[in-house]
Amino acid sequence: MAQSEPDFRSRCSIARTLEILGDKWTLLVVRDLMWHGKHTFQALARSEEQMPTNILAARLKRLEALGLIAKTPYQRRPLRHRYDLTEVGHSLEPVLLGLMDWGHGHLGGGHFDPVSGESTPPRA
Amino acid sequence: MAQSEPDFRSRCSIARTLEILGDKWTLLVVRDLMWHGKHTFQALARSEEQMPTNILAARLKRLEALGLIAKTPYQRRPLRHRYDLTEVGHSLEPVLLGLMDWGHGHLGGGHFDPVSGESTPPRA
Repeated sequence: MAQSEPDFRSRCSIARTLEILGDKWTLLVVRDLMWHGKHTFQALARSEEQMPTNILAARLKRLEALGLIAKTPYQRRPLRHRYDLTEVGHSLEPVLLGLMDWGHGHLGGGHFDPVSGESTPPRA
Repeated sequence: MAQSEPDFRSRCSIARTLEILGDKWTLLVVRDLMWHGKHTFQALARSEEQMPTNILAARLKRLEALGLIAKTPYQRRPLRHRYDLTEVGHSLEPVLLGLMDWGHGHLGGGHFDPVSGESTPPRA
């Protein structure tokens, strides 16, 4: 899929996916780009989880190198970029939904319905 | 759900799930317990990804504290334990399937059908 595909440690698809996306932050960037209309570095940095900006910058770079997001300039002075999911990035939606359903069912977190845009608040 | 639920950084269910499971290893332990009949420390340590044993020990402890796995002694001298997923741990199956489908579709990894037990080898 990607411009720079890593040398995978395993033949297992789960292990490969975790190798590139398995951390506490990367899929939150994908979430914000997919569902929450956050497309600039500033907007992404302001999410509830307060991702450290150095981590955010590194994750954006990696997601771009993997072909999951595209970066386009939207302003020249000062130069600012807009980030969007590519088709491959969008195809992570079922993964996000699976993580959300589990966290909603077992960790009391909120629920977001991408079709209606409706949110259910967390239980705790 | 759990005996020791962390103080979550976010109301978002995805962020909460990643907070406890978001790394390169934890869900591989869940995979091996769920589908591959590996229930001892030794068996889990022998998986293709060669998880370092200190990480494996820490993850098993954490999964047990979270109520996702149960540990039972199966031998007294020397003492050896068997690990099994609890019902909450089993409920992660859709998450595993989502990660697998994506890695199969986009990273060329293999595919495992838990119903038939059949495996499709990786493309690369």
